[in-house]
Amino acid sequence: MSFDPETLRYDAAGLIPTIAQDADSGEVLMMAWMNADAVAQTLETGKVTYWSRSRQAFWIKGETSGHTQELIDLRVDCDRDCLLVMVRQVGPACHTNRRSCFYTAVRDGAEVELSQPMTD
Amino acid sequence: MSFDPETLRYDAAGLIPTIAQDADSGEVLMMAWMNADAVAQTLETGKVTYWSRSRQAFWIKGETSGHTQELIDLRVDCDRDCLLVMVRQVGPACHTNRRSCFYTAVRDGAEVELSQPMTD
Repeated sequence: MSFDPETLRYDAAGLIPTIAQDADSGEVLMMAWMNADAVAQTLETGKVTYWSRSRQAFWIKGETSGHTQELIDLRVDCDRDCLLVMVRQVGPACHTNRRSCFYTAVRDGAEVELSQPMTD
Repeated sequence: MSFDPETLRYDAAGLIPTIAQDADSGEVLMMAWMNADAVAQTLETGKVTYWSRSRQAFWIKGETSGHTQELIDLRVDCDRDCLLVMVRQVGPACHTNRRSCFYTAVRDGAEVELSQPMTD
């Protein structure tokens, strides 16, 4: 079946949540949002491209920071309202310079920091 | 720092997207939503509990199907607007009886089914 980004289910703002996972290590790196054009562009270019809700603009991941995400595989969930992109991540995925955005764990009722910012 | 579910950033409906990942294999299983009470209940009981948007009710994963998710670790992202739960999943996580909801890949412009429903 051929794929059409318009057949995905977007929220009221026209966005779909997208999980980025390291294709090699399996680590979940981040979650961001795409619109239909960002999905199409990601598939076309192989460069993972989100829609920035704060800037209301396309966000080609790593375009300014160099911390790009090369698309390895794109997955659609059963309800067609969530995406999973398997990526090859250059450097940190997180704006705090950590590999993953999910660096805080909740353990025994307290927040624990699991990783430190990467140094170049 | 002690953890308070109220300090997370919820959307206009009071919900936060939550990614469930297999704690052993690293496979991303599903994405669903929690509200502050579901977060608190998940931490308290160790049984991953979402908020069902369609039923507008707590959804203790696997309560009726038996396909439970035991909480192994809960992670908060840098913006505090997304959660990652590392889980021990019994059976399929997906309502289609597949292990993961992300069983459809988009390759060369076509949708490809990567896994089949599990048989008990």
